[in-house]
Amino acid sequence: MTSLDKKFAVQRHAEREEFSREEIYSWLDATPLAHVGFVDPETNTPFVIPMGFVRDGDRILLHGSSGSRFFLTITKGVDLCITVSHLDGLVVARSAFNCSMNYRSVMIFGKAKLLADEAKLDALEKITNGLIPGHWNNARPMYKKESAATIIVEVPLDRITGKQRNAGANDEPEDIDLPIWAGVIPMEVTYGQPISEETASQLPVPPNLEPLWK
Amino acid sequence: MTSLDKKFAVQRHAEREEFSREEIYSWLDATPLAHVGFVDPETNTPFVIPMGFVRDGDRILLHGSSGSRFFLTITKGVDLCITVSHLDGLVVARSAFNCSMNYRSVMIFGKAKLLADEAKLDALEKITNGLIPGHWNNARPMYKKESAATIIVEVPLDRITGKQRNAGANDEPEDIDLPIWAGVIPMEVTYGQPISEETASQLPVPPNLEPLWK
Repeated sequence: MTSLDKKFAVQRHAEREEFSREEIYSWLDATPLAHVGFVDPETNTPFVIPMGFVRDGDRILLHGSSGSRFFLTITKGVDLCITVSHLDGLVVARSAFNCSMNYRSVMIFGKAKLLADEAKLDALEKITNGLIPGHWNNARPMYKKESAATIIVEVPLDRITGKQRNAGANDEPEDIDLPIWAGVIPMEVTYGQPISEETASQLPVPPNLEPLWK
Repeated sequence: MTSLDKKFAVQRHAEREEFSREEIYSWLDATPLAHVGFVDPETNTPFVIPMGFVRDGDRILLHGSSGSRFFLTITKGVDLCITVSHLDGLVVARSAFNCSMNYRSVMIFGKAKLLADEAKLDALEKITNGLIPGHWNNARPMYKKESAATIIVEVPLDRITGKQRNAGANDEPEDIDLPIWAGVIPMEVTYGQPISEETASQLPVPPNLEPLWK
C-alpha cells in the first residue's frame, strides 16, 4: 500500500453514490452548517441560505428567528433541498483535466414541519446541545419570550443522498510517469483555542466544550 | 480592549449587511467551494449542488462535465443563487437563546453564460490556477478531447450580497455577571501536509503549492 492507499484505505471507488444511512449520518454530524435551498414564492427566485442545523435521529432540526422572512418562508411547506458538504482535499493530478477535489456531501429533499409546545422545547434543548455539547444545562434557562421568538422546524431524513470522492489523483495511464508531482492536499475544519469574554475570563472553559476544540 | 475586542477589532456591529465589493471578493477568494442553487425545470424541484469555483475579476467561473445533467441544466439560462459561506466560530453565550455562530457568507444571483473557444481556454487556465496555484504551466497540456468534455460557465458578480457575524457573545445585560463561561470557539479550514502519489513520491512538492499548505 502506498501512503495514499493507507490514508484512504476505506475507499474502494474514487466516486461512489451508495452509502449506508449510518455513514451519511456521520457526515451530517460532523458539521453544524447546512445550505438550505428553496424557491421564494413571492419572487419565484431560488435562494440558498446558510443555516445551523443539528441531526436528531431520522430528522434534522433547523432554528431561525420569527423576524426572518426567509425562515418564515421555509415553514410554509415549500420544497427544500438541504445540502451539507465537507471539502476534504485538493487533488493535484499530472493533467489539469484530472485535478479534482475530495469531498463528502449530503442532499436532503423534503418539507419543513413547524414544531410547537413540548416538541419545540425538546428540540430547543437538542439544538443547543447539538451545537454546543452539554450547554443546555449550563446555560441560563430560556425565557418564554425567547422560545416564542424562536422558530424550530424539523425535516425528516426520508429522501437523502450522499456522494463522496475520497481518492488520490486519477491520472491517465500514459501520464503516470511524467515528472510532475501528483497527490492530495488534505483539508479539514479545525477549532482554535476558545476566546473568553472579558467578564468570563476568570471562569474556566467548561469541560463539556472540550470535544470541540481539544 | 478585551482579548475578544482585539481579535475582532475590525468589527463595529455584530451583524452587518453592507460591505465593500473588495471585502466580499476576499471572502470568495478564501474558498473554492460554492453551493449552487436552482430549480430543475424537469421536476420543478430546487437543487443545491456543491461545486468548485474561482473568481476572476467581476465574474465567477464554474466548470463541470458535459456528462452531468445538473451542470447542463445551469447552462440553460435558469436563475441561480450561488452561496459561498465560511463558518468562523461557535459563539457560546450565557443563555441558549443568545448562542450563535460567527460566519461570512456571500449570495450571488444571476444566470450562467456558457464559454466557448478562446474565452473557454482562458477560463480553463484561470480555473486550474485558481484552484491549484501555478498548476496550469506545470501540468501536462490539455488534450482537445479533454477541453471538449469540460463545460465552463461564467456568472457575473452584478447582484451580490454579503453578510457577516464577527463578534463575541451578545448576552442580555442581566446575564453578564452569571457564573457561566461565555466566549467564541474559532473555526477555520486548514490544509494538511501533502500526500504524494506513490509514483510521485520521489518528486518534491512544487513550491507553487506552498501557499496552500505552508
